[in-house]
Amino acid sequence: MHPLLKKKGFIIDIDGVIGRSVEPIEEGVRGAKRLIEMGKRVVFVSNNSTRSRRILLERLKSFGLEVDESCIVSATHATASFIAKENPEARIFTTGEEGLKEELANAGLKIVDYEEANYLVVGSNRKIDYDLMTKALRCCLRGVRYIATNPDKIFPSENGPTPGTGMIIGALYWMTGRLPDVIVGKPSKVIMLEALEKLNLRPEDVVVVGDQIEVDVLAGKNIGAETLLVLTGVAKEKDIERAEIKPDYVLPSLNSIF
Amino acid sequence: MHPLLKKKGFIIDIDGVIGRSVEPIEEGVRGAKRLIEMGKRVVFVSNNSTRSRRILLERLKSFGLEVDESCIVSATHATASFIAKENPEARIFTTGEEGLKEELANAGLKIVDYEEANYLVVGSNRKIDYDLMTKALRCCLRGVRYIATNPDKIFPSENGPTPGTGMIIGALYWMTGRLPDVIVGKPSKVIMLEALEKLNLRPEDVVVVGDQIEVDVLAGKNIGAETLLVLTGVAKEKDIERAEIKPDYVLPSLNSIF
Repeated sequence: MHPLLKKKGFIIDIDGVIGRSVEPIEEGVRGAKRLIEMGKRVVFVSNNSTRSRRILLERLKSFGLEVDESCIVSATHATASFIAKENPEARIFTTGEEGLKEELANAGLKIVDYEEANYLVVGSNRKIDYDLMTKALRCCLRGVRYIATNPDKIFPSENGPTPGTGMIIGALYWMTGRLPDVIVGKPSKVIMLEALEKLNLRPEDVVVVGDQIEVDVLAGKNIGAETLLVLTGVAKEKDIERAEIKPDYVLPSLNSIF
Repeated sequence: MHPLLKKKGFIIDIDGVIGRSVEPIEEGVRGAKRLIEMGKRVVFVSNNSTRSRRILLERLKSFGLEVDESCIVSATHATASFIAKENPEARIFTTGEEGLKEELANAGLKIVDYEEANYLVVGSNRKIDYDLMTKALRCCLRGVRYIATNPDKIFPSENGPTPGTGMIIGALYWMTGRLPDVIVGKPSKVIMLEALEKLNLRPEDVVVVGDQIEVDVLAGKNIGAETLLVLTGVAKEKDIERAEIKPDYVLPSLNSIF
């Protein structure tokens, strides 16, 4: 039996482990199903900053994984949850899309125009424009609290590289010298602590599974959990040697744990 | 007589010296008129990356300054002129607006879609969107020659601060680690050498006049010309003490030279 099967909980990255965009990764889906059938506690974690948990849930269901919303932690949800704990009265201006706004509203948070905001929440937006950037710039200059959903610089879409949330973070940094006060998504601890809370487990009882060394493995290290790198996504065998951060285990896919 | 009146040529910044957006600065316009009447050679220089020389000329005319296009150097025109000299066969993808495209086309340069481009020309665009940023990102990743019209980070509009060309430069830098191979606008030498060429004078025979220490005065120093800071724009008396770069002369307005 693989030593990681002794752990009680699994924090599993979606993209590159369970699916690639709308396509399932069969070996990943099978592995996750078997873990759930064994009675392991499982949460799926995504740095996606444009989709609500509801949409991610639908995607997992389309892959054949029957789970409920409590098993999903997205950067959108974790951002809403973090702010709701820190300041339930926050007045938020966000650059983000509907998926992020949906999660902020679900957490009881108020979304306002930039002039009334005391929070700037930066998330990726495929409809970003000059007006939205101007408003984000002015929030930054005014010194409001500044939260970013995730740090991803480039998003590898089916059609090639496209800008991630990092595009907006970089633009604001260059113009104002400000970086986010808090970044929620992996490798930040913020989203991982949210996942641990959902599992109701301590870091030593969980495994963090992902396909990216600098994102998933680092996120696992940041909370002191053991890490499993799978080779169904971004990282290839040769990347492991070069990397400064070493995963505890490497397997071809999530299902290889069995 | 003011010692600068011995110089043969004047390189004069437009915004903050001659006008503020569409409004003339009377003392600046009067000063420029008198210099021209005295027979001084004068060029007007602007870091504006969205307007062609034609539009800047119309603006100067509306201020009562009757000059022709040969007296204007804009970041748009200087960019086109720089590339036309370096590589007349350049195939350019640009993030810029119509004013920049007009100057590139006037210089005989070819504007193409990003896939065919061997040059990326970054200029500000008030219609910037995700698609345009994706294309610029891919040009950067492909390693094409990368020219920026000007480095200005924030543009102080009538309604408040808005993003300058620097927004795009910063976003691309954050995502790809690349900075422009060449920046044309002030304080770069590139636009200043273009101005000297128009005047057909050596640096020691000209004065660089502007309202910003880090932009205009530095640009003057960069070509070894004497500099005059006027207080009709951004810089105030107190800024001069703090600044590391010192202008050779400071006057309330351009007309104070008389």
